[in-house]
Amino acid sequence: MKKSVLAIAVLTVCAGAAQAQSSVAIYGVMDIGLIKSTGSTMQVGKGDYNRLGFKGTEDLGNGLSANFRLEMRFQPDTGTLEANGQRPLFQGRSVVGLSSATLGSLKMGRDLTAVQDPASDFDPFGFQTVGTLDAVTGNYMSDTSVASSGNRFSNGVFYSTPVMNGFQVNLSAATKEALNGVPVVKSNPYSVSGTYAKGPLAVMVGAERATNEDKFWTLNGAYKVGVANLMASYSRYNRVASTDDTNWLVGADIAVATGAVKVGYGQIKPEHKSADKQASLGYWHTLSKRTMLYTDVTSRRPAVGATNNAIDLGIHHTF
Amino acid sequence: MKKSVLAIAVLTVCAGAAQAQSSVAIYGVMDIGLIKSTGSTMQVGKGDYNRLGFKGTEDLGNGLSANFRLEMRFQPDTGTLEANGQRPLFQGRSVVGLSSATLGSLKMGRDLTAVQDPASDFDPFGFQTVGTLDAVTGNYMSDTSVASSGNRFSNGVFYSTPVMNGFQVNLSAATKEALNGVPVVKSNPYSVSGTYAKGPLAVMVGAERATNEDKFWTLNGAYKVGVANLMASYSRYNRVASTDDTNWLVGADIAVATGAVKVGYGQIKPEHKSADKQASLGYWHTLSKRTMLYTDVTSRRPAVGATNNAIDLGIHHTF
Amino acid sequence: MKKSVLAIAVLTVCAGAAQAQSSVAIYGVMDIGLIKSTGSTMQVGKGDYNRLGFKGTEDLGNGLSANFRLEMRFQPDTGTLEANGQRPLFQGRSVVGLSSATLGSLKMGRDLTAVQDPASDFDPFGFQTVGTLDAVTGNYMSDTSVASSGNRFSNGVFYSTPVMNGFQVNLSAATKEALNGVPVVKSNPYSVSGTYAKGPLAVMVGAERATNEDKFWTLNGAYKVGVANLMASYSRYNRVASTDDTNWLVGADIAVATGAVKVGYGQIKPEHKSADKQASLGYWHTLSKRTMLYTDVTSRRPAVGATNNAIDLGIHHTF
Repeated sequence: MKKSVLAIAVLTVCAGAAQAQSSVAIYGVMDIGLIKSTGSTMQVGKGDYNRLGFKGTEDLGNGLSANFRLEMRFQPDTGTLEANGQRPLFQGRSVVGLSSATLGSLKMGRDLTAVQDPASDFDPFGFQTVGTLDAVTGNYMSDTSVASSGNRFSNGVFYSTPVMNGFQVNLSAATKEALNGVPVVKSNPYSVSGTYAKGPLAVMVGAERATNEDKFWTLNGAYKVGVANLMASYSRYNRVASTDDTNWLVGADIAVATGAVKVGYGQIKPEHKSADKQASLGYWHTLSKRTMLYTDVTSRRPAVGATNNAIDLGIHHTF
Repeated sequence: MKKSVLAIAVLTVCAGAAQAQSSVAIYGVMDIGLIKSTGSTMQVGKGDYNRLGFKGTEDLGNGLSANFRLEMRFQPDTGTLEANGQRPLFQGRSVVGLSSATLGSLKMGRDLTAVQDPASDFDPFGFQTVGTLDAVTGNYMSDTSVASSGNRFSNGVFYSTPVMNGFQVNLSAATKEALNGVPVVKSNPYSVSGTYAKGPLAVMVGAERATNEDKFWTLNGAYKVGVANLMASYSRYNRVASTDDTNWLVGADIAVATGAVKVGYGQIKPEHKSADKQASLGYWHTLSKRTMLYTDVTSRRPAVGATNNAIDLGIHHTF
Repeated sequence: MKKSVLAIAVLTVCAGAAQAQSSVAIYGVMDIGLIKSTGSTMQVGKGDYNRLGFKGTEDLGNGLSANFRLEMRFQPDTGTLEANGQRPLFQGRSVVGLSSATLGSLKMGRDLTAVQDPASDFDPFGFQTVGTLDAVTGNYMSDTSVASSGNRFSNGVFYSTPVMNGFQVNLSAATKEALNGVPVVKSNPYSVSGTYAKGPLAVMVGAERATNEDKFWTLNGAYKVGVANLMASYSRYNRVASTDDTNWLVGADIAVATGAVKVGYGQIKPEHKSADKQASLGYWHTLSKRTMLYTDVTSRRPAVGATNNAIDLGIHHTF
């Protein structure tokens, strides 16, 4: 009896302690490293995209919740917003919406598109470090304005079904309104993807129409064999005003006792031209669930121009 | 005895847990909706002003406390600071000061003026959604520089008396210093308001001189009859360099079982010209104390030019 | 026995309460005051540098921890980032790294240099308020670009030894990469300082090469006699492209029952020219550990031009 009285007292006191921050969680990534590339002096730069975010969930009952997320992105070596401050304050994400266990989630604002959001799962480097092959989306950009990051929709509506037997469908669409000095577009930009993840297998198919009416579709798979997660990706980028690209990559993320070895090879092939080829190797050393040290080497041989090699050594910290 | 020892232990432990965030609370509003206006494509936009804020209070003893507040404002559809990034990072509020239960509160920095702060209580739409009549302050702006939001003073000193029998007096004044490229002003901008709120009645009277020496005065009242809060507002805007405006509105905020119905009509009448007339109707559906869905229709007939109608459908989430 | 069970329950519950914010602490300073200077209208301005920061520490075991820190700096009177918004979002600090009890701390990103970080300890006004003599670093700037604050390195690596018997050595270096439109520099900027603090004595010696290859060295001491902390500083600033400066100051920070009295005199003497002389007196009134009121008077007689006097009255709040 005494126990329960005290327990209530404890809960009350602690609720008070937590209340000051109500429902907002702060999260983010800081990732800085040394990078040396062919023909360039040593640089302090980033591996992953650096973020400081604020998010919250409110339980509305009956399996329904309201959610928001605001995410700053910045250059950690100078403290500036991305693209030397040209990008929005909440470039990463600026969304609010409702989520239901049975009906899925609907949000509005600025976010990664249905295709771009899961795409990084099929690059062994996860779009981080100099090792990133970048041959999943290649030269394609969902939004071509300077003030965007190329893989997000502003003025967007984003819907995802619940995950059913490992399957999920995601839809994104944006309005035709003028943005960043770019006049009203003729067709609504949209993005649709289907993902499957169960046991050792993960698959993602997707198609998208960009703000400039360029089109993109992609097919990706990953399969776990022992400690190795093997990946393959194939994509087509159809430009409205010019020739098309075909991208593909193969790679592996191999768990080792102290972290992970990453290896991959990819090509971005413009029509009627030689391919831009890239091979990468990395070792990511785990210090904790939240912190790792990494080093990567990559070699990129473009169709035109000299080969570019790069090596990095950095720290990645999640909070 | 055991209990009190434990209680102290509990308080100590929880103080530790809370200490990581010391005295700072994160708060804000995210509000996004679809908006369709006459002659414009469908847009993703905002109803309310979107904010991410940080605030804290320190108890100094003897009824005295120190307080600060920093409030970002942003466009949720693109993640950018207001006015496409032209406005200050802490456009909403940037103030620090002292507050006393007996002497009132004094703060310095950037904040809503004494007149602008309570003005939204007398528009049934509370300066939110397309329904907002905006006929309380009309075309008047406290600060006319692009980098301001029109209803705040930078370089300001803000004083409020304690609330005494429902009465409160608020004073704001700003320095004459140059701001945003606008040279030193001849007269100190100031703002004064008196508010009364007790039982069913709320009243606000106020007068102000803007950074460009324009003047504004206003008289507002609200009275609760059953589930309806009836509102009326009358204001005069005296331009230094041009003609004057007379604004008025009537409206009601009617509580219903699932939320609120909003209705209002307002005019902004320039001297020697026809009035700009607006009528609005809205339904705001409560999902929780912090979250609501809203839809509004409004029709604005300007003195010159075509009638503009608009409809919105959105979500408003407070955190 | 019951006690320990309850204690565990308490810890668990409170850990839950704290978890929402995981490891991120919000901190900062808000400082606003009225400032009146010769030939200028009354201004609302700042005493100290205003900050809003986010920091975290993760224990990695074996005396090792991972740390990050992101610090915004802003003008509290307008809510804008420093230098009217020209400076980076995280102008103050943007660093991540590892810290070891035995090996010291290593971090990368943007931070105060090894010399600039401890320099404010040897000005009785601590680089705050109009009283600040600014004769420790004088006209020297570690980074001369508009987008910097003059005493930080972007693209930096920062190392500090552990404190051993009161001694600590700090090293900072930056890459040669282009920054803020300034092309690649010929020599790596660096900064080195040694500090000693034990009992009544504190000493700092330092040397630095700026991004524009200018050089700076400094020798500083402080000694506590009763309630007074006496300070002296001597520095040399060697310009690559022009004449040199010699700076010195003497001052005292005197604890009184209700706060502190600050007094100081300093000179910045350009070669072959008369010195720029400044004397200051201040009283800082303690309201709590986190909040104080301050007033200062200062008189600056430049080698050329009229004497400038200033007085301030403000509030300084730490959170």
